[in-house]
Amino acid sequence: MTDKPRIVLASGSAIRADILRGAGLTFEIVRPNVDEDEIKAKSRAAGLDLEAMAVRLAEAKALAVTAPGALVIGSDQILEFRGEAYDKPSGMVEARARLLDMQGARHTLINAAVAAKDGEIVWRNLDRPSLHLRAITPAEIDAYLDEAGPEILKSVGAYQVESLGSRLFDRIDGDHFAVLGLSLYPLLKFLREQRAIEY
Amino acid sequence: MTDKPRIVLASGSAIRADILRGAGLTFEIVRPNVDEDEIKAKSRAAGLDLEAMAVRLAEAKALAVTAPGALVIGSDQILEFRGEAYDKPSGMVEARARLLDMQGARHTLINAAVAAKDGEIVWRNLDRPSLHLRAITPAEIDAYLDEAGPEILKSVGAYQVESLGSRLFDRIDGDHFAVLGLSLYPLLKFLREQRAIEY
Repeated sequence: MTDKPRIVLASGSAIRADILRGAGLTFEIVRPNVDEDEIKAKSRAAGLDLEAMAVRLAEAKALAVTAPGALVIGSDQILEFRGEAYDKPSGMVEARARLLDMQGARHTLINAAVAAKDGEIVWRNLDRPSLHLRAITPAEIDAYLDEAGPEILKSVGAYQVESLGSRLFDRIDGDHFAVLGLSLYPLLKFLREQRAIEY
Repeated sequence: MTDKPRIVLASGSAIRADILRGAGLTFEIVRPNVDEDEIKAKSRAAGLDLEAMAVRLAEAKALAVTAPGALVIGSDQILEFRGEAYDKPSGMVEARARLLDMQGARHTLINAAVAAKDGEIVWRNLDRPSLHLRAITPAEIDAYLDEAGPEILKSVGAYQVESLGSRLFDRIDGDHFAVLGLSLYPLLKFLREQRAIEY
């Protein structure tokens, strides 16, 4: 009988930890020390598309954590709108501009999740939920930003669908957990196959 | 200028109240006094399909609450599996049998939401998210039921996707809030049109 492998979440994101906790998983959290800007610049220089860039970032995070024998989960989420990638807004002014820009249109949340074991990537997953922001007036955006506050700056889209952000959408197509930041179902399948979880 | 209409949720369901609270809505809760079994029996006798039955139930709940001038929200969720309707399981034995029966297959959560105003139905919505339970062994179902406990009896499917229930799924297609029990985005759209919410 082999030992049950430990699970390590290579992420400082509270929502990703919440997702795994919600699913009843036992795991450790290690915030990876990764220069995301450098990886993005190199990915762009290499002509990688945004999906490949998200995978690179997720891999870098997973590989940055040393945990012998453990399954180290790395992940990344990139907002794609009209072919461009967006990071988390730097402040409320940028958040406002972004929502104004994206309202009445669809954007995509490119989600990459990977697992590393002993310095090797052993699993990869990509998901692309598509979200339709309703037509929103500048006054509505102001009311939303006032009410939601700077908490929204933790999200690439300047919204949190699990709370007030729901007021901004017409519809969301795709997996809910991928929207939140981690594709849970494929990850659970992998962890079951690895016998890291009982069921 | 007309007054902002009050919102009344005609439901004793904690999760539906949580959904509206999460979206930042101000509302009252009134548990409707409705004989659901009678409505179901009459719907069956009238040859209604499950969608129409869900709408009837939602309407009956909304109309059972008297709140002059208010928008009264009624809703119902029916689990459909192989053409049959399922209620909340009566206990852990039935929950186990249901999960065993449905594992490895798709089922549908028929969701009806309506609004009544001064005794008239003024809005109706139907949604049908489709869920695929993964192949699960009886031992896995037992482990899940032990860990999740009788809380799962509050759900027609004997699972709660927002917590441990996620361990049972391969994938879920459709709106997350409809899976939880109330189609939030169409409802918010209606409430905005009625000027019951600011944005």
